[in-house]
Amino acid sequence: MNRYAVFHRPESCFAYPVAGDRLRVVLRVSAQDELDKVELLYNNKYDFTKKRYACQMDRCVTDGVFAYYMAEITLPDARFAYIFRITEKEKVFYYSEEGLSEEYLFQLAYYTFFQFPFINGADVMRVVDWTRSAVFYQIFVDRFFRGDHEKDDRYINTAWNGKIDRYSFAGGDLDGIANKLPYLCDLGVTALYLTPIFYSGSNHKYNVTDYTLVDPQFGTNEKLKRLLDSAHEKHLKIIIDTVFNHCDISHGIFKDVLEKGRDSEYYDWFLIDGDFPDTEKGNYAHFADCKYMPKWNTNNSEVRRYLIDIALEYLRMGFDGLRLDVADEISHEMWRQLRSEVKRQFPEALILGEIWHLNEPWLRGDQLDGVMNYKFQKILVDFFGAVPIKAEDAANRMNGLLLANTQQANAMALNFLDDHDTPRFLGLAGGNTDKLLCALCAMVMFPGMPCVFYGTELPLDGTGDPDCRKTFDWTFRDQREEYRDNFKNILALKKQMALSGAEAEIAEQDGILRISREAEGECVTAYFNTCGKAKALNAEGGGTLFALNYDGKMIFNNGAVVVKNKTVKNCGGKIS
Amino acid sequence: MNRYAVFHRPESCFAYPVAGDRLRVVLRVSAQDELDKVELLYNNKYDFTKKRYACQMDRCVTDGVFAYYMAEITLPDARFAYIFRITEKEKVFYYSEEGLSEEYLFQLAYYTFFQFPFINGADVMRVVDWTRSAVFYQIFVDRFFRGDHEKDDRYINTAWNGKIDRYSFAGGDLDGIANKLPYLCDLGVTALYLTPIFYSGSNHKYNVTDYTLVDPQFGTNEKLKRLLDSAHEKHLKIIIDTVFNHCDISHGIFKDVLEKGRDSEYYDWFLIDGDFPDTEKGNYAHFADCKYMPKWNTNNSEVRRYLIDIALEYLRMGFDGLRLDVADEISHEMWRQLRSEVKRQFPEALILGEIWHLNEPWLRGDQLDGVMNYKFQKILVDFFGAVPIKAEDAANRMNGLLLANTQQANAMALNFLDDHDTPRFLGLAGGNTDKLLCALCAMVMFPGMPCVFYGTELPLDGTGDPDCRKTFDWTFRDQREEYRDNFKNILALKKQMALSGAEAEIAEQDGILRISREAEGECVTAYFNTCGKAKALNAEGGGTLFALNYDGKMIFNNGAVVVKNKTVKNCGGKIS
Repeated sequence: MNRYAVFHRPESCFAYPVAGDRLRVVLRVSAQDELDKVELLYNNKYDFTKKRYACQMDRCVTDGVFAYYMAEITLPDARFAYIFRITEKEKVFYYSEEGLSEEYLFQLAYYTFFQFPFINGADVMRVVDWTRSAVFYQIFVDRFFRGDHEKDDRYINTAWNGKIDRYSFAGGDLDGIANKLPYLCDLGVTALYLTPIFYSGSNHKYNVTDYTLVDPQFGTNEKLKRLLDSAHEKHLKIIIDTVFNHCDISHGIFKDVLEKGRDSEYYDWFLIDGDFPDTEKGNYAHFADCKYMPKWNTNNSEVRRYLIDIALEYLRMGFDGLRLDVADEISHEMWRQLRSEVKRQFPEALILGEIWHLNEPWLRGDQLDGVMNYKFQKILVDFFGAVPIKAEDAANRMNGLLLANTQQANAMALNFLDDHDTPRFLGLAGGNTDKLLCALCAMVMFPGMPCVFYGTELPLDGTGDPDCRKTFDWTFRDQREEYRDNFKNILALKKQMALSGAEAEIAEQDGILRISREAEGECVTAYFNTCGKAKALNAEGGGTLFALNYDGKMIFNNGAVVVKNKTVKNCGGKIS
Repeated sequence: MNRYAVFHRPESCFAYPVAGDRLRVVLRVSAQDELDKVELLYNNKYDFTKKRYACQMDRCVTDGVFAYYMAEITLPDARFAYIFRITEKEKVFYYSEEGLSEEYLFQLAYYTFFQFPFINGADVMRVVDWTRSAVFYQIFVDRFFRGDHEKDDRYINTAWNGKIDRYSFAGGDLDGIANKLPYLCDLGVTALYLTPIFYSGSNHKYNVTDYTLVDPQFGTNEKLKRLLDSAHEKHLKIIIDTVFNHCDISHGIFKDVLEKGRDSEYYDWFLIDGDFPDTEKGNYAHFADCKYMPKWNTNNSEVRRYLIDIALEYLRMGFDGLRLDVADEISHEMWRQLRSEVKRQFPEALILGEIWHLNEPWLRGDQLDGVMNYKFQKILVDFFGAVPIKAEDAANRMNGLLLANTQQANAMALNFLDDHDTPRFLGLAGGNTDKLLCALCAMVMFPGMPCVFYGTELPLDGTGDPDCRKTFDWTFRDQREEYRDNFKNILALKKQMALSGAEAEIAEQDGILRISREAEGECVTAYFNTCGKAKALNAEGGGTLFALNYDGKMIFNNGAVVVKNKTVKNCGGKIS
């Protein structure tokens, strides 16, 4: 076997608790290896040298380069010791903390076995219950709908449905969202993600001047309260975009430092190179190249206290979770403290972070619940986009992505096709709404929480910021009814209990991408054919089946093809 | 190149900050690959798509299977984006978050580069200053020296230097340690690690009945205060073995639960299966198979509060750090909270954990500073023991061990030859004191904090517990003076500034193990020859040189062979 490929690491996505007495164990080997048997030898760590149980591991998935074997083991007292025994052409290998070997001395195993020394409940990541069936809808508030016609609207500089630029104000507000709650419920949405709403000079409000005063352009704190109450009455959750990486230079605390320099009691709340911050030079840490967005120094415990109190205030206002902007540039210490305080007071609050890159360091259970899943979005763009990658590559990358985190973190990933920082997916898919629906469906089928950007149901088009932030066209009613019906049907899939598990079987089959989800023995399978030719799809996969196939025209066959009851093997969600 | 071997992961020991603006980056490839060039392409993450700097990485070390290339990069604003460019026989590969590829689209890099998004000072692990030159001495208190002859000594059931069994009480105490502080200083010791001293029925006191009352067998809280003051006057640090995994069944809180069962306010402080704990059945989580040691439920925040307050009390008493018993079976949540509170009040307190296995999950900067380095001890046993492994294997394993953690965690690892839970090293080395000294020297040369178990300087022999816990033979004075001189000379090496860095170059050379340490351009090299034949050792390695060579007789040549000034390349400590 390929010794360079074999890998396992406890306390990672290769070994983590899924319950108080239950450990998921994954072994990576080369995808080219033809192994006859992979077994997990395990027991309570204090008995391991004397006696081991053997559990055969199933090959569950490949990412193209590596193959992954998986098993779950249960022990009544939750102290695990284990090693792997691998059989290849009658040759036996052992894999332990000391690496791969052809012999293994069990009597000396105490030094060398892998261990998960004790599953402590406090360390087991818990999936926030309401997220299991959540269908999110992201609203860029200035552009969704204007509901308040009494407000001072002299700030509005752009006609609704007019041309949008970086400095456009179109008038959308909280009353507008409140008015449209029935519409959103009808669409199949169960949760809203609002871009920032607190006092700020910009249309996007990511440069905050006052963290707890609702921006008068959007409404008042009372209107916010009414929106939250009204949403909750309709069983809609609302999470709020929370900008703790930086503020605006007009924020009172930064202004104090601007004025007093080192003499300000807040000097150490920012990272300043010099006696005074200079907003022209930008001699202080700031977001990207935006000198008007000075970065908070979250190494300072007073700053953490200040910001975390704001987070708690948001949750007290009634928000159901936080979407943390630029989460990866803020100290881990901040997130650990925030999580600890938030979860103690609001155990059902969702903590999501904006991270475009490898995100496992934030998703170990001590910081975030989930991330904005840019990695998944990129696969969808590459598979449904202008020059589609092969179904096999898409399957490999999706599997690799799921294997990079625990199933709990995967379940709370926010999956999306596009957002306020990317071009609209429609454009990336060459304007083809069939492709858009296929991608939407793949997203709904994928583990995690699907999220649609406002207007995708029309669909709105647009290139990158600001073109992706056009106003919602409320004159749409008579157009594209079939598209919208399909759109709603796809979102409705999420509600099926079958989709509420956290795992998927994803593979290439005859050049077509297949995603299956199962729960309690029932199975839903979707096929995505991007190869340009219509194909006969074979339904023997089982369970509820539908197929998405495009070559100009989409076949959308959501029939209840219930096949023979399948045995779902206890193997990390693999259906075999 | 071998695509199965290539590996990198940010926010791990493959990429971590060593200072506020300085990132250490490591790339793993196959040791068999013959690469022409490995480069790091990097820049501020917001400028990376436009422009990159290139830094050639040096091949620094191998663990036998893999080779590791290393570089350190500095950026003024500490937001890093990077990928690797690898040249092999005029073929170029790129390695990014998307894996290995032969092409790389820099204009789309924002989705795929590796990143270290921002170095936040709060997340940079800091080495506790006094540990850099620390030479530890572990004392099993009942067996070191009796100083108090006034105490009620009816508990003593064993003559000093008599036969020891599991239930022996020999009379050692805190006054005994206080009396011997000048002796310990003379030996070259700078820090003591005391096994538990608080009220407990056993001789080892790992089953605590009262966490803050010094056991009357060992002294009083006043005597402890005097010991600590006296040690501090002599610039000796003292850390205390802290047993938070479990207590004794006679602990007041467990007794309350024994009496009241579910009606006790402390029922949830343990993990009990049933209405009442039953000490015969052991129907509650406990340490190993010891029913008399019920495990604390550190998932319960009240338990964490109770135990952390005890830790803080120890530090207020004057202890300089904590050695946390069975650290790996206690919740991570507990250690995060403990670290946060301890470091806020006592930034120079050392937090060490007992972990025999892979320990990186505890050493990310949010929990422990270092561990009891059982992994290193096992290599020493295997290399200097009865059937020595080859020098090449020893070097590979030592390098692998150093690469498994950050240099900060390596610097705070407690290295030892033996302790109260293992056989004495002397016996493992077949009674050969030359081997023992060689092992001691290898330990002092290795990154981390050397720790000798009381009596090694005699040397005491003994198999496993209880035989390794014999009383210290204070009649030793006239014997083995040469051994003890060498012993002290070896410990004294640690004091050399040259050894205070955290890195070593470790390699096999002509069948001999070589360990080099350097600081500020000076270099100390030690050679360890276990192959049974005397060998001529070539001094061209440079710097201060000494050689340990055994074939019955040890050559100990600690001459100041200062060779030409060497250029120390800025490459993760590699001297080339």
